[in-house]
Amino acid sequence: MSDLVRVLILGTGQMGSAIVRVLLEKQGLEIVGAYDREPKLSGTDLGQAVGLENPLGTIVEFDLATAVHGCRPDVAIQATGSQLATVTPDIEILLSQGVSVISLAEEMAYPWCRSAATAQKMHELAVANHAVVLGTGVNPGFVLDLLIITLTGVCAHVESIAARRVNDLSAYGATVLRAQGVGSTPEAFARGVQDGTVTGHLGFPESMHMITTALGWRIDSIEQTREPIISTVRRETANVVVEPGQVAGCQHRAVAYRNGSPLITFDHPQQVCPELDGVQTGDRIEIRGTPDIHLEGHPEIAGGQGTAAIAVNMIPRVLSAAPGLHTMADLPVPAAMHDDVRHFVQPVQVQADG
Amino acid sequence: MSDLVRVLILGTGQMGSAIVRVLLEKQGLEIVGAYDREPKLSGTDLGQAVGLENPLGTIVEFDLATAVHGCRPDVAIQATGSQLATVTPDIEILLSQGVSVISLAEEMAYPWCRSAATAQKMHELAVANHAVVLGTGVNPGFVLDLLIITLTGVCAHVESIAARRVNDLSAYGATVLRAQGVGSTPEAFARGVQDGTVTGHLGFPESMHMITTALGWRIDSIEQTREPIISTVRRETANVVVEPGQVAGCQHRAVAYRNGSPLITFDHPQQVCPELDGVQTGDRIEIRGTPDIHLEGHPEIAGGQGTAAIAVNMIPRVLSAAPGLHTMADLPVPAAMHDDVRHFVQPVQVQADG
Repeated sequence: MSDLVRVLILGTGQMGSAIVRVLLEKQGLEIVGAYDREPKLSGTDLGQAVGLENPLGTIVEFDLATAVHGCRPDVAIQATGSQLATVTPDIEILLSQGVSVISLAEEMAYPWCRSAATAQKMHELAVANHAVVLGTGVNPGFVLDLLIITLTGVCAHVESIAARRVNDLSAYGATVLRAQGVGSTPEAFARGVQDGTVTGHLGFPESMHMITTALGWRIDSIEQTREPIISTVRRETANVVVEPGQVAGCQHRAVAYRNGSPLITFDHPQQVCPELDGVQTGDRIEIRGTPDIHLEGHPEIAGGQGTAAIAVNMIPRVLSAAPGLHTMADLPVPAAMHDDVRHFVQPVQVQADG
Repeated sequence: MSDLVRVLILGTGQMGSAIVRVLLEKQGLEIVGAYDREPKLSGTDLGQAVGLENPLGTIVEFDLATAVHGCRPDVAIQATGSQLATVTPDIEILLSQGVSVISLAEEMAYPWCRSAATAQKMHELAVANHAVVLGTGVNPGFVLDLLIITLTGVCAHVESIAARRVNDLSAYGATVLRAQGVGSTPEAFARGVQDGTVTGHLGFPESMHMITTALGWRIDSIEQTREPIISTVRRETANVVVEPGQVAGCQHRAVAYRNGSPLITFDHPQQVCPELDGVQTGDRIEIRGTPDIHLEGHPEIAGGQGTAAIAVNMIPRVLSAAPGLHTMADLPVPAAMHDDVRHFVQPVQVQADG
């Protein structure tokens, strides 16, 4: 391709702002449009909306169809929500205009999980309009799915998979902290789990189904438990104070079973200031198989920075993919881009008949 | 696809034997032919040639064209050599017959490195005959290239990469041990490095160029050093005895430079019985960038088992790829296959005009 890759950004919150900063460092693309559902941002300059010193000359639009019509993007990066139901209308608007979509919604990592019908409709809309749609992110989208799948690539067979991701929520804002029960009492945490306001991590079923599809595994059920992480010390961030005895985060665990045996086990304790209670953050993957594989790293792969990066790094993969709905396991892996984005775009692959 | 995937195996040595064992565990494929350049194996049953108890009903052929003509394979797995020049004639015979090739030759991991002309000819031959050719293996092909590239996918930018793979050669035979100088004196090791008989690891330039291509990095030079690992203790395997003061293996290091600074640094000490001298085997990857990434695992990802597995796991990826020469970074990642191989084959993607 000779023209610059035209990028539309959806969402100018913490994640959207981080993505804009990564995009501005890249050659071969331009941010041609921005959209946010917050009415009071409508008409502001994108640079101002994301907290840059200088304006970017791109106006934040409140109406997505108007934004698309005005800027004719090649690809949109969606950082507006987590749930499939929330993000689907915007994705459908984009696909119907032939705009490819990279979504950071957790449930888009493997959308068949939440609604096979929605996923199928998305796929058909993408194919009909020669566009591509993909869900990605650090987790789901990378650490607990793509990276694990990649590692099983050197296994003749796999008996079971266990992974643990211990991360630090200190940089996150009120919405994320509430969803993890941070700062609440153990009793309020328990009520929150019951009434669905304490969700813990979003994406375990998506990651598990991405893995089972990639490996051809059948699973019978997924069980999830959410336990409070009770702090023994005072923990304080810009957005919350946790006193000793209060909840510093959510120890969220998911187990996928086949014939009563655990096939995939994920542990993902998320909390503020883990180091104050002597907890080391990190990622650990254990594959029991032929051969066994064990990999771990400390600290954890940074969620915020990593998600902004992978969203941008997937641009050439999406622009090179066959039309339709894809997962991270279907496409060549992303890589950091230290050259013009267009140099990483391969000639578009078109599906053959039959 | 409805018919079984027809697999031809090239090479019935240690690696070929391991691959046959993995293939026999899989559904949806059949071993339809075998080839070995060792005349005395010609006409023997493949099962006997690879040390199985029972015959497989497949005869080992000495002439590749005869083997191909007799068995009409979909894909061939090549475990016959390391050098591009050695394996190219067989690859060209296969491609010209429309047979896709998965090669374990180290120099096939990124064949442009050794000869851009050979790689280009291979690519054209593959395209002309609607076939695919790929080099793979645990290293090169996975640990020091694909896995690193994958990890950079969550980086907005990368400053430098350092990786260290410490492995155990105890299971290997005389040819491998000689190439690493195992059992020699330090003086003989030095002479071997000079005259090219002590090669150390094959694949550093290939892995480095796979990474630099994936990231769009330019490098100026690659420098390699091979130092003897002098044992302080007696080490003994089925194939060699190393006395104290003798060489237990080769500490092979490669550094890729840009503007005089190291961009990629690989350390790969290979030796027999490392544990006898207090050396722990393992893989370690350090990426300096945004964000930093650190991952390590002990023991190392098993080279022999892993290579046999990845060769087989790439079958559906190769059968799903656009015709031509590919690297591991161009295709979707492999995964362990716990279902019929044909279920992992996607409709063939054909290159669009322009």
